[in-house]
Amino acid sequence: MNDFSFELQAQCPDTGARAGVFHTPHGIVETPRFMPVGTLANVKTVTPAHLKDAGAQMVLSNTYHLHLQPGEDIVAQAGGLHKFMAWPGPILTDSGGFQVFSLSDLRSITDEGVKFRSPRDGRMINITPEKSIEIQNALGADVIMAFDECAPPGVGRDAVEQAMDRTYGWLKRCISANQRQDQALFGIVQGGEYLDLRAEAARQLVDLDLPGYAIGGVSVGEAPEIIDQVVKHTAPLLPDNKLRYLMGVGSYREMARAIGHGIDVFDCVIPTRLARHGCALVDGERWNLKNARFREDFEMIDQGCPCYTCQNFSRAYISHLLRSQELLAYTLLSIHNITELIHFTQRIRQSILNGTFRQDFARWLDEPIH
Amino acid sequence: MNDFSFELQAQCPDTGARAGVFHTPHGIVETPRFMPVGTLANVKTVTPAHLKDAGAQMVLSNTYHLHLQPGEDIVAQAGGLHKFMAWPGPILTDSGGFQVFSLSDLRSITDEGVKFRSPRDGRMINITPEKSIEIQNALGADVIMAFDECAPPGVGRDAVEQAMDRTYGWLKRCISANQRQDQALFGIVQGGEYLDLRAEAARQLVDLDLPGYAIGGVSVGEAPEIIDQVVKHTAPLLPDNKLRYLMGVGSYREMARAIGHGIDVFDCVIPTRLARHGCALVDGERWNLKNARFREDFEMIDQGCPCYTCQNFSRAYISHLLRSQELLAYTLLSIHNITELIHFTQRIRQSILNGTFRQDFARWLDEPIH
Repeated sequence: MNDFSFELQAQCPDTGARAGVFHTPHGIVETPRFMPVGTLANVKTVTPAHLKDAGAQMVLSNTYHLHLQPGEDIVAQAGGLHKFMAWPGPILTDSGGFQVFSLSDLRSITDEGVKFRSPRDGRMINITPEKSIEIQNALGADVIMAFDECAPPGVGRDAVEQAMDRTYGWLKRCISANQRQDQALFGIVQGGEYLDLRAEAARQLVDLDLPGYAIGGVSVGEAPEIIDQVVKHTAPLLPDNKLRYLMGVGSYREMARAIGHGIDVFDCVIPTRLARHGCALVDGERWNLKNARFREDFEMIDQGCPCYTCQNFSRAYISHLLRSQELLAYTLLSIHNITELIHFTQRIRQSILNGTFRQDFARWLDEPIH
Repeated sequence: MNDFSFELQAQCPDTGARAGVFHTPHGIVETPRFMPVGTLANVKTVTPAHLKDAGAQMVLSNTYHLHLQPGEDIVAQAGGLHKFMAWPGPILTDSGGFQVFSLSDLRSITDEGVKFRSPRDGRMINITPEKSIEIQNALGADVIMAFDECAPPGVGRDAVEQAMDRTYGWLKRCISANQRQDQALFGIVQGGEYLDLRAEAARQLVDLDLPGYAIGGVSVGEAPEIIDQVVKHTAPLLPDNKLRYLMGVGSYREMARAIGHGIDVFDCVIPTRLARHGCALVDGERWNLKNARFREDFEMIDQGCPCYTCQNFSRAYISHLLRSQELLAYTLLSIHNITELIHFTQRIRQSILNGTFRQDFARWLDEPIH
């Protein structure tokens, strides 16, 4: 077994926040840290060199998308995902569960697995826990995720409990199916908004002594106060000496609060998605640079930001690129937005190491959640 | 007057080719050299850092496009084009003449100037020689171009001669209108396919002792053998001690032959336009990376190419990005294609300095032109 240890460096005296280092075969992840999403083996519009400059350590990619295009065989022939996408650092692949349930023309869900029609070419595809792991073994990320059933919000307790039980059964099959010792298989705590189900799921997973744990099913369609409650009650049930990953969350407030509850890493498509809508993230706000007020604004997006964009280009210039529909606008905004979210988590990390997290981030921790 | 001298370093013993250094207030241009085009104050999908790595020295931008969006006032308020687009090196702005004639809903051409309807917002716009220079003075490029009338191919000798005479009259008004000593105003030799008209135009321009000369009206819709004949007979009529610029040309053969006739610099949108069609330039060929044969081709585009793309990404990866409609594909292909054309002209420059141009580039110089 390779080293996937999580080294605890500091704990906040008055919250659950912690700073640490997660080890992988392709390098370390200093936590807390935001992880950019490269769904199709690239973070949209930015190069790996830009990602490195932005402070990215672990990046995500997606089993569902890569299975459909180009197919895991091609990635494996290329020498694995790190070489294929030219990202030498740590990579995590999501299992495809969430995408099968949210993006596909789903045909059946049984204990065996799921059947769906490919949105690319219409062919029927079977994904079982074994298949998801086979694909992820071929892709070769450092961290791979168990295949899970994601019950959508509002389906009721019985459906959530059934999905949770099935996810647990699938997890055990994933563990048996995993062929590679240089990939860490993480389990995903499900259970919807039901805190007792979350607690039961957490206990089941902890008993399996996995190399890391994720909290899933909280990102899409779920109200922020429910996410906060779930994380608050679930994170502390996970072992101190394992990495804790909150899936699909990337807003300032949700990250700050989740870190306060003991979460270490996050992923979200928001920085690149906002960029494609012309928006910049600035200290918790979203600025739409297509807005008329930026046409003659010759300041950088954020004077204090060290990113390539803020070192070189004015708001007026990016506004001009957006009005001209020049694709470079998306690259420059993505570089800034990714840097901004990573630096937000890096500043939190530093404040935890300094013992000042509770005070420094009171703005995010104390405001009511809407 | 600032220094815009052209320093001749070497002349080919058996062709008209020459190597030199052109001086500008923002740095030098080692010639021969291809110049990337940044129409709207950006070279599509690439950052200035990418351009620098690609070996770019002088880059182009466009008076017509920048007048429509964002407007020259905004660029001037930003501190000029160099600062606005974060390109600290030499910049050349085309006068807008070519674009007015090729892209606009043109309403009238008189000796005074042209009237057209803006394709952006439908308002009527007047561009006179004085207005073109006023805009270019506000933009602040190192080299600015005289406003010219471009007669399309096939209009006949009388129309070409009339456009040429009008262009000469406009040039003299441009010279009077130019307010800045730190910008070099280049004249454009017109005259269509008529070698005697080209010779007359060249003589008229040389008499004005301009800081540099362009050959225009050869790039769009004109047959390669006509371009070659025009350049062959026109370039030697221009002074040895001034930069010679062939407008809108960027194919391997046309550049190599034009250099053999004594041309120093070129511009063309082809490297970025091909990139957006999924094509890579490789040693004179165009490869469409969407072609099925590249799906499992794990070589770099060009093993010998020093560009960021060829140092990191396989043909299979770029094929995957194209099939996934990921915009990063256009960035990676643009980086490669721009590097490829600049390096092609850099290799020619080196061979001229070595005295081996005629032999080294015989492939391009001797093949018949179709």
